[in-house]
Amino acid sequence: MTVYNFSAGPAMLPPEVMCEAKQEFLDWQQQGVSVMEISHRSAPFLALMQQAEQDVRDVLAVPDDYDVLFMHGGARGQFAAVAQNFLGDGGQALYLQSGFWSTVAAEEAKRFADVVTMDIVQSCVKTQTKRVVLPELTSDLGDFRYVHYCPNETLEGLCIDEELISPWPVVADMTSCLFERPLNIRQFGLIYAGAQKNIGIAGFALVIVRRDMLKLPSLPVASIMDYRITADNHSIYNTPTTFAVYLAAKIFKWIQAQGGLTYFYDLNQRKAELIYAVIDSSPWYHNRVAIANRSRMNVTFELSDPRQQSLFLATADKAGLKALTGHRLVGGCRASMYNAMPLTGAVALAEFMRRFVQTTSTAPGI
Amino acid sequence: MTVYNFSAGPAMLPPEVMCEAKQEFLDWQQQGVSVMEISHRSAPFLALMQQAEQDVRDVLAVPDDYDVLFMHGGARGQFAAVAQNFLGDGGQALYLQSGFWSTVAAEEAKRFADVVTMDIVQSCVKTQTKRVVLPELTSDLGDFRYVHYCPNETLEGLCIDEELISPWPVVADMTSCLFERPLNIRQFGLIYAGAQKNIGIAGFALVIVRRDMLKLPSLPVASIMDYRITADNHSIYNTPTTFAVYLAAKIFKWIQAQGGLTYFYDLNQRKAELIYAVIDSSPWYHNRVAIANRSRMNVTFELSDPRQQSLFLATADKAGLKALTGHRLVGGCRASMYNAMPLTGAVALAEFMRRFVQTTSTAPGI
Repeated sequence: MTVYNFSAGPAMLPPEVMCEAKQEFLDWQQQGVSVMEISHRSAPFLALMQQAEQDVRDVLAVPDDYDVLFMHGGARGQFAAVAQNFLGDGGQALYLQSGFWSTVAAEEAKRFADVVTMDIVQSCVKTQTKRVVLPELTSDLGDFRYVHYCPNETLEGLCIDEELISPWPVVADMTSCLFERPLNIRQFGLIYAGAQKNIGIAGFALVIVRRDMLKLPSLPVASIMDYRITADNHSIYNTPTTFAVYLAAKIFKWIQAQGGLTYFYDLNQRKAELIYAVIDSSPWYHNRVAIANRSRMNVTFELSDPRQQSLFLATADKAGLKALTGHRLVGGCRASMYNAMPLTGAVALAEFMRRFVQTTSTAPGI
Repeated sequence: MTVYNFSAGPAMLPPEVMCEAKQEFLDWQQQGVSVMEISHRSAPFLALMQQAEQDVRDVLAVPDDYDVLFMHGGARGQFAAVAQNFLGDGGQALYLQSGFWSTVAAEEAKRFADVVTMDIVQSCVKTQTKRVVLPELTSDLGDFRYVHYCPNETLEGLCIDEELISPWPVVADMTSCLFERPLNIRQFGLIYAGAQKNIGIAGFALVIVRRDMLKLPSLPVASIMDYRITADNHSIYNTPTTFAVYLAAKIFKWIQAQGGLTYFYDLNQRKAELIYAVIDSSPWYHNRVAIANRSRMNVTFELSDPRQQSLFLATADKAGLKALTGHRLVGGCRASMYNAMPLTGAVALAEFMRRFVQTTSTAPGI
C-alpha cells in the first residue's frame, strides 16, 4: 500500500533525498564515516555548508546584502531570537495576529520587550469564513523596529499572499511556506523558517536577514541565537545541527532539480485545488477560510457531521492517508502538503474524500 | 581498511546503532514513514521519548527529584541557559576555569550577569604538566547561586574525577564525559551535555536538573531554553530535535546492552592507558597533563619534534586513523575515544604510534 503522509510537521521528506541519505548513511563521500560523525570545521563539511548557502541564494534569489544563517531550534526559538536581537534600548515592535502561530510569536516576544499586537482577521458571519485584511501601516502608528507577521498559519490553514506594505522592516515567520513559491526577498527585513516543513528535519531554522538589520540594538541574547555572531562566523560559531544541515542541503538541490520555485508553486496550487474542489462541491465538508486566504500548504476542513470525523480519519489512515487529524487545539482535519507531497498524494486524498461520502450511509448533519 | 574515527565531536557513533538506524531509515516501526517525518506528539514518538528518559534514569541512576530534559543546541546553548535560568534578580555565580570550555562558559554567562571566575589549574615547571587543584569552597567566598565547572576539558585533554565539594549547587558541563563512568548524580544541582560525544549527534543537549533548582529566579530567557517550561512540558513544549532524540534513545539502550557504565568505565580506562603507555615510554611523544588529571575521553599529545607532526597526522590518516589533529586553538594531536570507540581502535593507534617511531628515520628533537 502506498502511504501518503499529510503530517503538518515534522513532515514528509522527498523520497529521493531520503533514499540518497540512506545510501550514504554509514559512509559519506568515501570517508568511511557518516556525515554525522565528522567535525563541522572539516573541509568536506564546510564545503557542504557553503554550497547549501549558495543553493538557498540561488533558489530564492537572495540579494547580496542579505545574510543566510543556519541556526538551532525551530520557529519558536526564532520568536525569541527576533525580539532579543532587535528590541534592545527600549525598542518596540508591531505584531500582526492572523492565527495561532503569529499570536504565540507575539507572546514570546513579550517575554523580552513591549510589543504591540493587532488582529488582522475578520470573520464573515454569512459565509462563516475568516479573511485577512492587511492594515494600512503608517509611521503614525508608532516607532517600531519591525512589523512581524506569519504569511501561512498552519493550524487554521490560512495564508497571506498579498504583500505587506510597511514603513518598518517586515519580519516574516515563513516556517510553513518558505520555498513553496517564488518570493521577492526585498520585501523583507528578515525571514525565518523552522526546517521541519519544506527544509528538512526538526531542530534547525533557516534565517535570511538584510545585513543592515544587524545594526539594531539587541538585548542580551545567547550566542547561539545571536544573528550577528552567527553571521560573522558563517553559522559555525558553535557546532551547527550538522545532520539537519546536510539533509537541507540535499533538499535545496532537489528543489532545483525539480524545476525550482515556479515548478513547486504550480504543483502546490494544483494539489490544494484538488482538495478544495472536493470540499466546495460537497455538503459533507467545510473549510472556514475565505478563498483569497486559503493555504496551499495546509488545507483544513471539517466534516459537516462531526460524528463522522473519527470514522473519516480512521478509514483514511487504513487507506494509507496518514496524519490527517487537525491540530489538537482546533480539531477538524488537516491535509498538509508541502513540496515533498507528490500530486498523486493529493489525487488519492481527493478520491478518498469523494468515496467516503458515497460509501458512508449516514447523511451529513446539515 | 578499517577506519577508526578519533574526532573530538561530532564524534563516531556505535556501529550497531548506526546500522539499525540505517535499516529503519525509511520506515520506522512499520509505519511506512521515517521517524523524522512524524509528529513529536504522535503516540509512537511520545513513547520513544518516555523510554529514552527512563533509560537515562536507569543508566545514570538519576534520583526521582531530578528532571531529565531534552533540549535544542549544544553545550554553548547551555552556557547561556544556565545563566539565564538561574541568575535573575542580581544573582551571582562562581565559574571554575580549568581550560578552554570552562572559560568560554564563563564568558557566555557574562553576557547576562556578573560571574566570578577562579583559575584552578597549576603548571608544574619541572614536569611541564598542568594539574587541577580544586579550591576549598566556603560560603565566605560569596553568595553564589551555583558553582560551574567542566569535569572534562576536550581541548587540553584534562579531567577532574575528584568530587567538587561546594556550599552552593554544582553545575557541571559534562558534554565530553557524561556516560563515560558511573556518577553520583546527587553531587550535582545540574548536569548538561551536548550530545555530539557520548549521546549522539549535534544540535541536542541533555540536561539533568534537581527540581528545587527550578525555583531560582531567572532572567528573561527564550522558551526553548527555559528549564521550567521544558520540564513542565516533558521536553515537547516546542518540537524537539526528533531525529537526535531517536538516535540518543538507541544509544542509551546500547549502553545498557553493553553492560552499563561500569563496563564503559573499565573499557575507557583500558583504551586511554594504551595510548598514555606509548606516550610515557617514548621520548617521541609528550603529554602535558598531570597523571591524576589525564582525560580518558581525549588523549592529547605532541610530537617532541614538531617537524614530525604533519607527517605523523598524514601517515595516520592514510592508515585509517582519522581526525587525530588537535584543536585548532592549541595544535598538537588528540585522540578522542568516547564510548563508541572500540578497544581495537586504541590498540591500532598505540601500534601505529610505536611503529611511527621505529620507521621514521629522523631522531626526535630532544
